[in-house]
Amino acid sequence: MVHNAAAGCITLLTDFGLTDPYVGVMKGVIATIAPGRTLIDLSHMVPPQDIATGAWLLHISHAYFPEGTVHLCVVDPGVGSARLPIAIRTPRAAFVAPDNGLLSYVLASEPVLEAVALTNPAYQLPQQSTTFHGRDIFAPAAAYLATGVPLARLGQHLDPAQLERIPLYEPEPLTTGGLRAHVLHIDHFGNIITDIGPDQAIELLTKAAPPTVTINAVQITRRYRYYAEAPDDETPFLVADSSGHLAIAVRNGNAATLLGAKRGTPLDVIYGTSDVTS
Amino acid sequence: MVHNAAAGCITLLTDFGLTDPYVGVMKGVIATIAPGRTLIDLSHMVPPQDIATGAWLLHISHAYFPEGTVHLCVVDPGVGSARLPIAIRTPRAAFVAPDNGLLSYVLASEPVLEAVALTNPAYQLPQQSTTFHGRDIFAPAAAYLATGVPLARLGQHLDPAQLERIPLYEPEPLTTGGLRAHVLHIDHFGNIITDIGPDQAIELLTKAAPPTVTINAVQITRRYRYYAEAPDDETPFLVADSSGHLAIAVRNGNAATLLGAKRGTPLDVIYGTSDVTS
Amino acid sequence: MVHNAAAGCITLLTDFGLTDPYVGVMKGVIATIAPGRTLIDLSHMVPPQDIATGAWLLHISHAYFPEGTVHLCVVDPGVGSARLPIAIRTPRAAFVAPDNGLLSYVLASEPVLEAVALTNPAYQLPQQSTTFHGRDIFAPAAAYLATGVPLARLGQHLDPAQLERIPLYEPEPLTTGGLRAHVLHIDHFGNIITDIGPDQAIELLTKAAPPTVTINAVQITRRYRYYAEAPDDETPFLVADSSGHLAIAVRNGNAATLLGAKRGTPLDVIYGTSDVTS
Repeated sequence: MVHNAAAGCITLLTDFGLTDPYVGVMKGVIATIAPGRTLIDLSHMVPPQDIATGAWLLHISHAYFPEGTVHLCVVDPGVGSARLPIAIRTPRAAFVAPDNGLLSYVLASEPVLEAVALTNPAYQLPQQSTTFHGRDIFAPAAAYLATGVPLARLGQHLDPAQLERIPLYEPEPLTTGGLRAHVLHIDHFGNIITDIGPDQAIELLTKAAPPTVTINAVQITRRYRYYAEAPDDETPFLVADSSGHLAIAVRNGNAATLLGAKRGTPLDVIYGTSDVTS
Repeated sequence: MVHNAAAGCITLLTDFGLTDPYVGVMKGVIATIAPGRTLIDLSHMVPPQDIATGAWLLHISHAYFPEGTVHLCVVDPGVGSARLPIAIRTPRAAFVAPDNGLLSYVLASEPVLEAVALTNPAYQLPQQSTTFHGRDIFAPAAAYLATGVPLARLGQHLDPAQLERIPLYEPEPLTTGGLRAHVLHIDHFGNIITDIGPDQAIELLTKAAPPTVTINAVQITRRYRYYAEAPDDETPFLVADSSGHLAIAVRNGNAATLLGAKRGTPLDVIYGTSDVTS
Repeated sequence: MVHNAAAGCITLLTDFGLTDPYVGVMKGVIATIAPGRTLIDLSHMVPPQDIATGAWLLHISHAYFPEGTVHLCVVDPGVGSARLPIAIRTPRAAFVAPDNGLLSYVLASEPVLEAVALTNPAYQLPQQSTTFHGRDIFAPAAAYLATGVPLARLGQHLDPAQLERIPLYEPEPLTTGGLRAHVLHIDHFGNIITDIGPDQAIELLTKAAPPTVTINAVQITRRYRYYAEAPDDETPFLVADSSGHLAIAVRNGNAATLLGAKRGTPLDVIYGTSDVTS
């Protein structure tokens, strides 16, 4: 098997913020069980309880980590309730998370080789709270996986098909032609990332006739290959995000603030016609 | 001796924020002296000069780290003044900090095996500022301890009983019965953590008759075991925080904002009487 | 040669913020190519596209890292455009950055032994975006340098004299005597750091007659060696910053807010005359 869970990298994705020591405490638990691993933060600024944003940030990240990486993901509004803590194994990685949809993109894009509920107390902290399973259950599970403990030892087998999925935004065809798309994410720069994926984005960005994208009543037709190709004039334009998705940006500015966009804001895409030139 | 200062983990707790490279510079100093150690951030968002908050965040964290961990703590409004830079050794860890009360909870809960003032220039950076002892004195001390340098070599012996303590909030009995408690901390989720410790919190949360907690004129009697057990109705409730302390939370909401609570806000706890049912 | 690029420390400085997983993804790329290195964040809160602030934060940090450290610096408004991705080698370190002035202070203070454009695709990710060279070009370059790949292998030789420099603030003589200085940086505590460097700062802070510093029409003449030497009275005073530069601070307060100072704000320094006593 190519997968080697002991290889050494553990990532952390949470909604814990950076003010409290909750993330540090999880790393302390990991360092106690699996000393010397490389611990890498994906983000701890997922908006509180925002499973969908956490799922997206994980989706655009996990492919860039070494084989055998363990991804520890805790956005867990249901902590303490009947929702299961789980771990899954894919060909390249392992993921530890609550079974609440946080792994929805992973489940939609990767084959799941094995899934378990984290029910074995031998791989948890001896004393447990009802409010911080990140520390008491998820961090130990990730650490034990990183030391090479087989996934099956962590608890009861689960059918991957039964794992919780949340609805993921996807563009829908408009009756008038074109697409109704949605804002997936606003990044730190105010770039607006949409649910129009790489293949369709390339088409929209490169075919002769530019599309018209309407968001909050503003029409956007300009397209650029990179930010600095656009004039520095506060006019929003279309560009491919680093995930390959269609994005709306403003050069040296904040497109989301300018356009009043946030996660879920709809945008309508009308394909260019051949008599319009780019 | 079980304690092995060279084991490999160094934590950092400061009020330096994340905008400036001050924390990174301390890590550079550590990596120069003690390469390869696992460096773990507890928090760098302690409010500027807020020794009491720093002390609390350290208190709820340090037990979760491997034996031999060195905890580097710099909330240091008195930098450059007569306050001493110190290091102490407990059975499980070492702590490096200014002698200004930042270690108050540690001193109250752990036996101190040894304490020194960081007066030996051989274990400091050769060039020193009067405004950044984190870089010039504390980080080198933590790094040398992590390489196995005995604490006593870092400077003059101190009597642990003489180390600075700040007053710690504690519940006081009310003349009308019940307790006057206090808000210790508002966490990232807006949870209100009180100075009512684990034993008393369990009693208040589990005995038949619920207590009445009054904070900023709002009465709270509902109690839940975990957040998702509460209805999603913006009503505050009592719960045990991950530290075991009594906390006030709002499901999927921010209790501190709702109740106008901040560190030090008093709350009155009246015990439930037997004719009230939970 | 003393320089050993494989020694093990890689720092990261970006304007990517901490909400998105962009920094984590760069670390994943590094951990894939160069496992086990110590990854240290300098700052990811450089204001978006603010090359000058990034340059300053790098300047005050890099000397504190082990010899052979690779500094990965990405503040890159021109990503995807004709601006070159570059790497340079100095006697103590290597720097990977866009050629946009981000290395201006380094170039002004360190001898550059070698410089290259990152043009060799063998040391880049196979698939490349036009919007995230931090992931696709800069992180791999830093990682390969950390594994000992010679700088010259990363791409075409560049003449260090031709690398982009941005104008750096420097104090200018006033026709009325004294100096027109400038605010270089506001730190997390609200301390105002000026472009008056260590030698001149020491002179201004220690000679018998105190200077008068005027910023936004407020005159400052008080001088202290450290923050806690000042009275706790919200009055701004002069002090040496941890970089040695002249700074303006308020004890337990925020000098920048009080004085309305930001990067670039001018301040006039009139030397003290001998009949004024400190």
